[in-house]
Amino acid sequence: MLLLQIDFPYNGVVGKEMVEAFADLASSISKEKGLIFKIWTENEDTKEAGGIYLFEDLLSLERYLKMHTARLQSFGIRDIRSKVFEVNEALSKITKAPIF
Amino acid sequence: MLLLQIDFPYNGVVGKEMVEAFADLASSISKEKGLIFKIWTENEDTKEAGGIYLFEDLLSLERYLKMHTARLQSFGIRDIRSKVFEVNEALSKITKAPIF
Repeated sequence: MLLLQIDFPYNGVVGKEMVEAFADLASSISKEKGLIFKIWTENEDTKEAGGIYLFEDLLSLERYLKMHTARLQSFGIRDIRSKVFEVNEALSKITKAPIF
Repeated sequence: MLLLQIDFPYNGVVGKEMVEAFADLASSISKEKGLIFKIWTENEDTKEAGGIYLFEDLLSLERYLKMHTARLQSFGIRDIRSKVFEVNEALSKITKAPIF
């Protein structure tokens, strides 16, 4: 199980307006091959947003990251930070992670 | 619901050895006030580790972040990057996040 952590400077809409703007995109993302879930993140104070993703395998993650980075850039978003991690499942289980 | 994203350079043990080294710490973290869950992250190639946390409220998150940062520093860990986000629950629900 692999975790993809993405964040970037973001000056767009948040909250309910963000839901209206991105509901179709979210629906599309939910169907991505190998995706277990995405948590959508936003911070109006620091003007940042991003996502925490869990993927079944590295190939699916890397294909998604490449496609999604290009999509974000097409929205005018720059300085996209992405990090890939393995999940330590045993420790995460102890700390109540709902991923099993 | 608030998300805390932490990562840092890490040269210590990973995988099963990490579980043995940190099981007691994980058990302690699982009892932190306001914590919903923590996902433990590690990357042996990039020599990084971290955690993705969900908290019920900002006060609990800030208290934990202050305490945990000091604890990581006491382990000799430096360059700790932390970011706080709100979770967009409606969009996360569409992308199958198991947080509801």
